[in-house]
Order: sequence, then C-alpha cells, then structure tokens
Amino acid sequence: MYEPIKIRLAILGSTGSIGQQTLQVVRSLSNRFTVVGLAAGRNLDLLAKQVEEFHPQIVYYDTESTSRRLECSAQFMSLEGMASYPNVDTVVIGTSGITGLIPTLAAVGSGKNVAIANKEPLVMAGHIIIENAEMNDASILPIDSEHSAMWQCMIGEPKRARYLILTASGGPFRNYTVERMKKVTPKQALQHPSWKMGKKVTIDSATLMNKGLEVIEAHWLFGIPIEDIKIVIHPQSIIHSMLEFYDYSVKAQMGYPDMRLPIQYALLHPDRVPNPDLPRIDWAKLKELTFEPPDYEKFPCLKLAIDAGKAGGTCPTVLCAADEIAVDLFLKEKIAFTDISRLVAEALEKHEPLMEPGIEDIIEVDDWARAYTLELAGKKI
Amino acid sequence: MYEPIKIRLAILGSTGSIGQQTLQVVRSLSNRFTVVGLAAGRNLDLLAKQVEEFHPQIVYYDTESTSRRLECSAQFMSLEGMASYPNVDTVVIGTSGITGLIPTLAAVGSGKNVAIANKEPLVMAGHIIIENAEMNDASILPIDSEHSAMWQCMIGEPKRARYLILTASGGPFRNYTVERMKKVTPKQALQHPSWKMGKKVTIDSATLMNKGLEVIEAHWLFGIPIEDIKIVIHPQSIIHSMLEFYDYSVKAQMGYPDMRLPIQYALLHPDRVPNPDLPRIDWAKLKELTFEPPDYEKFPCLKLAIDAGKAGGTCPTVLCAADEIAVDLFLKEKIAFTDISRLVAEALEKHEPLMEPGIEDIIEVDDWARAYTLELAGKKI
Repeated sequence: MYEPIKIRLAILGSTGSIGQQTLQVVRSLSNRFTVVGLAAGRNLDLLAKQVEEFHPQIVYYDTESTSRRLECSAQFMSLEGMASYPNVDTVVIGTSGITGLIPTLAAVGSGKNVAIANKEPLVMAGHIIIENAEMNDASILPIDSEHSAMWQCMIGEPKRARYLILTASGGPFRNYTVERMKKVTPKQALQHPSWKMGKKVTIDSATLMNKGLEVIEAHWLFGIPIEDIKIVIHPQSIIHSMLEFYDYSVKAQMGYPDMRLPIQYALLHPDRVPNPDLPRIDWAKLKELTFEPPDYEKFPCLKLAIDAGKAGGTCPTVLCAADEIAVDLFLKEKIAFTDISRLVAEALEKHEPLMEPGIEDIIEVDDWARAYTLELAGKKI
Repeated sequence: MYEPIKIRLAILGSTGSIGQQTLQVVRSLSNRFTVVGLAAGRNLDLLAKQVEEFHPQIVYYDTESTSRRLECSAQFMSLEGMASYPNVDTVVIGTSGITGLIPTLAAVGSGKNVAIANKEPLVMAGHIIIENAEMNDASILPIDSEHSAMWQCMIGEPKRARYLILTASGGPFRNYTVERMKKVTPKQALQHPSWKMGKKVTIDSATLMNKGLEVIEAHWLFGIPIEDIKIVIHPQSIIHSMLEFYDYSVKAQMGYPDMRLPIQYALLHPDRVPNPDLPRIDWAKLKELTFEPPDYEKFPCLKLAIDAGKAGGTCPTVLCAADEIAVDLFLKEKIAFTDISRLVAEALEKHEPLMEPGIEDIIEVDDWARAYTLELAGKKI
C-alpha cells in the first residue's frame, strides 16, 4: 500500500490555540506527520500530556517562569535550536507577540518550511524575514485564515493579483457606539462572534488592530503595496479573503471558521487531503453573506496599523509593542478598551522611526515602546 | 515596445449575443486579436457592418434563408471550413442549438482552441467532443460564466476538486407559484433579472433547463460525475460558481454579471489582461449575497435535464431537441410556459435511448425528437 512520507514537525507554542489545533490535525491525519519538537511557555501540565501522546525528540518550555522540570526522554532545546533542528521539515510558529521573531529567523535561515500564525515577526521584520527566506530557499506558509485564503486563490495565478481584499468579521463591537465601547469589559471583548483564538488575538480582533496587522503581514507575504490591500467587513466569516485580478475577476476562498483547515493546508499544500474532522459548508443552511465598509473612526487601531505599515521602518514595531502592553493592561482591567488605541497612537507619535532596521534595532525599539507605553499608562490613569 | 502576438479568431454566431460581446472584447483589446472569420445566420445587416469594421478573410451566412448576397472581399466559407481554417488559432462557438455541433467537431478535429458558449454540442455529444479534443490536442475553453468560474478556480489545482457548486440566479419566476407560472407570457419570461442573453437561453434560464444543461456540460468539461455537481440558487449572480476541494475548502469566482469577462478569459487565459471597459465589483455597494436550494418541483426542467444527463446516451439529445422546439412554440405563444417541461418529459419518455451514440445517431435522434415534440404539441393543444 502507498504510504506517504511523513512530514517532520516542530510546533512552537504547542499549548496555545494554534499549537493545539495543529496537534488536532496531526491526530486526524496521523499517517502524514511525525512530531519531532514541541515548545511551550508555562503550561507544563498540557505540555506533559502532549509529550506523552506524541513522543517528540526535543522539547522547550520557559524554565525561568517555573522551577518545575518535565521528566521525559525528549532532549531540552532552545526555541532557536528547535526552529533550525536538522530532523525538522516544517516549523509551526504558533507563538504570540515578539517571542516568535528570533525562532522565525532561525527557521528561515535554515531553509525550513515555516508555517506561521504569529503575526508580529512579519509585521516587525518582514523585510528581513522575506529576504532571508529567499536567500535560504525557505518557504513561508501562512496559517492565518485570511492569508491562507489569499494564498489559495493565488495558486496557479503568479503575479496576476492586482488587489487583495481582506475580509474582517468586524468583531463583537461592530454595532456599538464609541460611548458604549468605552465601557467594554475584557469578558465582553473576549467573546468573538466567529473565531476561537488566543486572548491577545481576540482583543486585537475586537479593536480591529488584528486586521491592521494582517494588512502589513499580507504586504510582506505577497509583495502587494499596502495601498492595494482593501478591507471589507463580512460578519459571517465564511469568505476568508479574496483577490481581485488584473481583469477584475475576483477569486474567494470560503469555509466555516475553523483554523484546522488553513493549518492543514499550510502543512500539506499543494495537496488537499480529505479530513473527516473538518467542517463542510452546508449550502442549504447558509442563507446570506453580507458586506460593509470598515469604520475607521470607531476603530482607530485599524487606521493606526495601516498608517504604521505605510510609514514602514520601525513604526510597525512600535505599533506591535505598544499594542501588546495596552492589551495586557486592558485584560488586567487597568485601562479602558478605548485606551488601547490612545496608548498605541501616543507611542507612535513619540517615536522617531528608523528606516531599514536590523534585528537589534527592532528589539531595541520594541523594548523602548513597551517601557514608554507602560509609562504613559502609569501617568495617565 | 513589446507587441504581443495577435490571436487569430473565427467567430461563429458573430451577430448573436456572444458574438457581439466577443467583438466588444476585440475592440477593447484590439492589439491582442485579429478577426479572421465571421459567421452569422440571417442578420446580414449586422454582419455587413462587422465585416466593414473587422475585415475578416472569410465569412459565412445562411444563404438558404435569403437571396441577398454580401458584397465584400472576404471569401465565403462553410461553418465547418471556417472552424478548421488553417489561419485561425481560436474558434468562438457562439451559435445556438444543434447548429454548433458539426463546426465544434471540425474545430476540435483540427486542434484549435475552441471557446465554446453553445451548450448543445457538449450536452449532446460530450463524449465524442472530449475524446476528439484529447486526440487532436485541442483545448475546449468554456465561455459560460459558470463554467468559466469553475475553470478559473481549477487553475493550479489539478484533480483536487471533489464537488462542483453551480450557482443559478433562479430566473424571473423564482418566487412564483406553479399556478402563476402557467400564465407567464414570453415577454415576462424574456426579462432575466441579471443577465443579457439570447432569447432561447433566456427562456431556458426561466425554466432552469439552462442550469440542467450546464450540469451536463460541466460533467464533460471537468470530468466530474453528475452526482457530484450541486446547484445553489444565488439571485444576485455575483458568485458565478464554486468548487469544493477534497479538504472541504471552497473556491469561488466572482464579478458583476457581464459575459465579456468570461469571453476575454477564454481567449487570453492564463493571462488576465486589464480591460477598462469591464465592470468592477464595488464592495461598498454590494450589501449581500444570498443562497437557497433549488425547487425541483416548481422547475421540472431542471430535474429532467439532470436525469437525462445521468441516463446518458441519446437522452440529452432528446432533451435539447424537444426543449428547442418547445421554447420556440412558447415564444410564438402556441403553448404555455409550463408546457415546455411537459413536452420535454413526454419526448424523453417515448424515447428508447441508444448508448455511446455516434454523430449520425445523434443527428437522427435530434430529428426524431423535434418531429415528435411538434407532433405532441399539435395533438394536445
């Protein structure tokens, strides 16, 4: 019987939302994958279970945050080491925030297939990652449903896309007034209408910062100018994104909101492997798909992100760093929902951008922006 | 300056709806095409204007229906001769009904690119046309917006489509009761909600016969079993059709309803050439896309066509022939709208199908079905 060669995976952020869903895909299609590496942060309980189930050769977890040690036969290895480990074909970057930056560079530098869900590395250092991927023949494979959709629509259509049309659910506060948004609680903001995701991404979806980061990410992934990336609010989250070609023909990729499909596609593309555990659109039940333009005044983070993307240099780094701090403060109920955009805007205003930054510059600016945002928050609340 | 090689066209049915829109594309992108042949039926006035504008080397018109002769330097040639003329790269089959059958076979037999809008040749003789195309290295390029959509979604995805999802506007009588449909006039039936087309196709769209013919056509074009072709009613006619892949990912092709885009794509594919005369989706104005299942009881022609397609052999020939006669009788106000399906059903019931028919068998069955349908209509009205 035909037995496909197994893809050897390292999953960075294995206990997070993307990591867990990646392992669900591995379970569903177990004849296609071998899990070589698992890397977590602090959730040692879950990591221990994953190690028991998948028997990785190498593991990582944040040894600074706990004195507990995992007892297993797997070898402990740094995130960078795991991302460039010779026995690995595909590295899944399921970390969040800046954590994924150095491992992404390591994976790209060693010519891996890099399946990336973590937006910040591309947003902060897209120029460096793309250049290194080209030099080292690494493939960057988007996991975000929107970027996966655009990638799927681009298959067989090299350089024929003129515009990218990024869809956005609009988040839970699409129909709120600005006044009402001021009183939003973390609990409300964590109720995303269509997607199950980690906390940071869910809040970013509620402010539409997430969509802005996706614009910058799409720019780097597909080489399309930010001016040619449009956003359409589509609350049902069935159309995951679209391309408009030079002849005005539009192609869209669709499916129920479920991250396992884009994860599977990133890992197995160009194959489209039947997976009975994935959901299937029922056209008898799907009554309508609706569209509306985004409201940049109600969602200032969207405009901040697009403007930072256009400005380039270290602006997107400040955007990401300030947002990460502000979202964290909001989740801890230390600032209001509408303060998130205010803090990010003030950090961006204060920043003197550096063009064509190196990795050290980016890390330095990231540190500055975090400290400055905390300072701003301390001062003004 | 870069000057692309011009594609040499023969347009069969140049004065019809598809022919005229093909010539609009030629006008918009005049540096890409040379019109070598123009073939019309009886509309000599329009043909004369087209000849004057495009200077074809060869022409055809129905010399039996008129004693008038066209004065021009172009050589008169039969439809078959034009379809296989050596100086032609791409033959546009914009004829209607069985007229296109022999020219399509001639074009396929001489290895042309065959851009086909005429459904009946594929519906009646799909097995012969596809086999001959493969033997002679001819390409069959769909012009129908639905088939063009599926073809565009298949680009770069060989053998990965599991289901075809054919969209249908539902026609002007989507919300009519059967009682109300009995009293429909030709004038009402000729008001298609979204597409401008010839009379025969417009009536077929109102009965949904057209959608049934498209199912059979799609089966031959893409090699997908009829059982795996689904129909979804989508009144806005923005999504022109979709594919569901083996991993349940769905790809859709979209645009405003305008035949010039699929015509242009058939002629210039895989290139997507900017054409400022084509319409572009305005996402701020497009509020919603809706979907509903088709009503097979209200539209019996749809089921008749699908069943004839599944039965195969000469059944689709009887379907097409009986429908052509019945639609003609309806347009002449000799039968009611709801008689169309009744006559087609009775002709199919009477017919003893022949499997794997040759072209002579098909022509003979076509003759029989036309005569029998006329006889039925004469008897029963």
